[in-house]
Amino acid sequence: MNYQFADRISALQPSAIREILKFTSMPGVISFAAGNPSAEAFPAKEIGEISARLLDENPVGALQYSITEGYAPLRETMKKHMTERHNSVKGFDQLIITSGAQQVMELVVKSLCNEGDCVICESPSFIGSLNAFRSYNLKLCGVPVESDGINIELLEQALKTEKNVRVIYTIPNFQNPSGVTMSLEKRGAVYALAKKNGVMILEDNPYGELRYVGEALPNIKSLDEDGIVIYAGSFSKVLSPGMRVGYAIAPAPVISKLVVCKQVSDVHSNIWAQILADEFMNTCDYDAHIRHIREIYTRKSRIMTDALDSPEFEKISYNPVSGGLFVWCTLPAGVNMPEFCKKAVRNNVAVVPGNAFLMDESEPCSSFRMNFSTPTDSQLTEGMEILAGVVKSL
Amino acid sequence: MNYQFADRISALQPSAIREILKFTSMPGVISFAAGNPSAEAFPAKEIGEISARLLDENPVGALQYSITEGYAPLRETMKKHMTERHNSVKGFDQLIITSGAQQVMELVVKSLCNEGDCVICESPSFIGSLNAFRSYNLKLCGVPVESDGINIELLEQALKTEKNVRVIYTIPNFQNPSGVTMSLEKRGAVYALAKKNGVMILEDNPYGELRYVGEALPNIKSLDEDGIVIYAGSFSKVLSPGMRVGYAIAPAPVISKLVVCKQVSDVHSNIWAQILADEFMNTCDYDAHIRHIREIYTRKSRIMTDALDSPEFEKISYNPVSGGLFVWCTLPAGVNMPEFCKKAVRNNVAVVPGNAFLMDESEPCSSFRMNFSTPTDSQLTEGMEILAGVVKSL
Repeated sequence: MNYQFADRISALQPSAIREILKFTSMPGVISFAAGNPSAEAFPAKEIGEISARLLDENPVGALQYSITEGYAPLRETMKKHMTERHNSVKGFDQLIITSGAQQVMELVVKSLCNEGDCVICESPSFIGSLNAFRSYNLKLCGVPVESDGINIELLEQALKTEKNVRVIYTIPNFQNPSGVTMSLEKRGAVYALAKKNGVMILEDNPYGELRYVGEALPNIKSLDEDGIVIYAGSFSKVLSPGMRVGYAIAPAPVISKLVVCKQVSDVHSNIWAQILADEFMNTCDYDAHIRHIREIYTRKSRIMTDALDSPEFEKISYNPVSGGLFVWCTLPAGVNMPEFCKKAVRNNVAVVPGNAFLMDESEPCSSFRMNFSTPTDSQLTEGMEILAGVVKSL
Repeated sequence: MNYQFADRISALQPSAIREILKFTSMPGVISFAAGNPSAEAFPAKEIGEISARLLDENPVGALQYSITEGYAPLRETMKKHMTERHNSVKGFDQLIITSGAQQVMELVVKSLCNEGDCVICESPSFIGSLNAFRSYNLKLCGVPVESDGINIELLEQALKTEKNVRVIYTIPNFQNPSGVTMSLEKRGAVYALAKKNGVMILEDNPYGELRYVGEALPNIKSLDEDGIVIYAGSFSKVLSPGMRVGYAIAPAPVISKLVVCKQVSDVHSNIWAQILADEFMNTCDYDAHIRHIREIYTRKSRIMTDALDSPEFEKISYNPVSGGLFVWCTLPAGVNMPEFCKKAVRNNVAVVPGNAFLMDESEPCSSFRMNFSTPTDSQLTEGMEILAGVVKSL
């Protein structure tokens, strides 16, 4: 059989970058290429206790079909949480539970965009979201990220020149991969530009709770008086990614379309995980847990950045880490980045080539991304020592 | 904000039928409209024990990110199971885990079909699948189901006259909603026609294990020597639908595209549920469990069909029930089916109007679907008594 696939699939071909990534899972390789929470960061005891209780008290409730919108008590819990702490649920908004925040990305563009429409993205940006957009044959327009967030002048220009822009996609806090947090001023400017141009904002905030330095800034959603912001939240980085529980907050007419699309995608998200997340939020000490994981990641990020601050890494510049899971590093001018990444993995340390995060992976890029949450502390130390040797040889 | 949605969404508007369905969840209404497993059918004790064990022994494994293809031991378990019992994994095939079989439907058409391509479906057919196809702006071509399965002459004609047919979608066992099982002869004929026309078959088999009469027939997948059958399986009806664990078996080139599409949809399925399903298959008595749920549903189906066989229901004809969860009933000529369904729900019994399952819901239809797995035995008895009164008034 000569298989013919949909045109949209051609945008998702394996690339040279993914060939490098294949090596990251080889035995003996210290991977700075992932984005998994630390094994220390799971509240495993609490989850075990809650799970035992809910499977004992109401097993059918945890095993039966449920509704597409999500477990009603969890929806109420998160509405309250996101209202009281983040002013991010407006009178016109509803909240639904999704199978991780990844599903929000797919449902939003499936609901809002026809093939050929344009999504404006920060450049670089999260590859999982970019691929979700690509899988609907959308045009991705990248606007560079600066140290305080997206370049506003270039965003304004893109909104003028690109046709059929439907969505501006942004990760305002500890952006993946750059680590950059958007300033309050720019949050207001992005909002104003979206409003002026009749474009929706998709605000993706998986790392908001993982702040190690300074004070939290308001979500763009908190500025939303016009019903133009869709907020994507996730339990993956604060509780467990394997549970696949995320949520979307958006105006009711948008939510109703996301629900229709979710129904045909997976009917509803795993209900055990939804009940568990709700019980966790209501019966455990959420703030103490967040403090605990912040301590873990502050420690781990410092192992990596202390090494980067040493003379051995003076050729490498990097974005300061105030939160999140990643360090975005840049090689000196003239150094071949793909060669550097290949040399690193041959020495058993895997990093991600920066052009994996561009709209067009074939563009030149001199940066790479490192993750500090997944490796153990000793792997961090050892990996940075190995990498120092690779840098020395430049 | 004047929200604009994607064109594809317009095929998924709420309909008059769904207005009737809204009443089914009202308090006091006995619902024969659902498709949930019986509360008695969950192996709750075993699931509780397995869950406690896995969260105790390897909590991080049950909570961490996992791979898109699915939990490797479960994939092996199901490959072995589907090979040894059903000869349904060929040398060219791979098996992946999905978030319920619903996700297989979406991934298959997303991977194989461009907008405007045609999917041939049995008419009537499962609304969740039809809506998944509609959500990719596909043309649905319905071919009538007869007492031994799809009409082969009309299928052949459709393959000749329809343009860009990419997939034939079929539920060969205890079809939803008709309850019909496709004969072995017709399975071969469908396969031969698909092969001749270069079209893939999507074989959806959620009810295969729920046989109450007679012997199982071979899956269409077991006939697949040419790599043209995609098989969708599910744990929803044999273990738990709330876990959202299904699987797809297909030739490797097709599976690799399904994986790419799944990755951007939900990264992977809930991993706790995947480990749990694997442990259940390997440490519990699967056959005894299947015998147990067959006994439950044989009993429940008989409460419904015994009532239908009584003189009070002589105006109603119905398809014999040899398995599955549904009874497909037909009203005498001249009776207004939507009116009948409205009258039933006003009397506190909900059934599903048959045209919900047609390619075009506005087509006339004199049938309706009843489910016997969800109601309790006493609800079944009471509901059929109420319905007898509605029939009497025809």
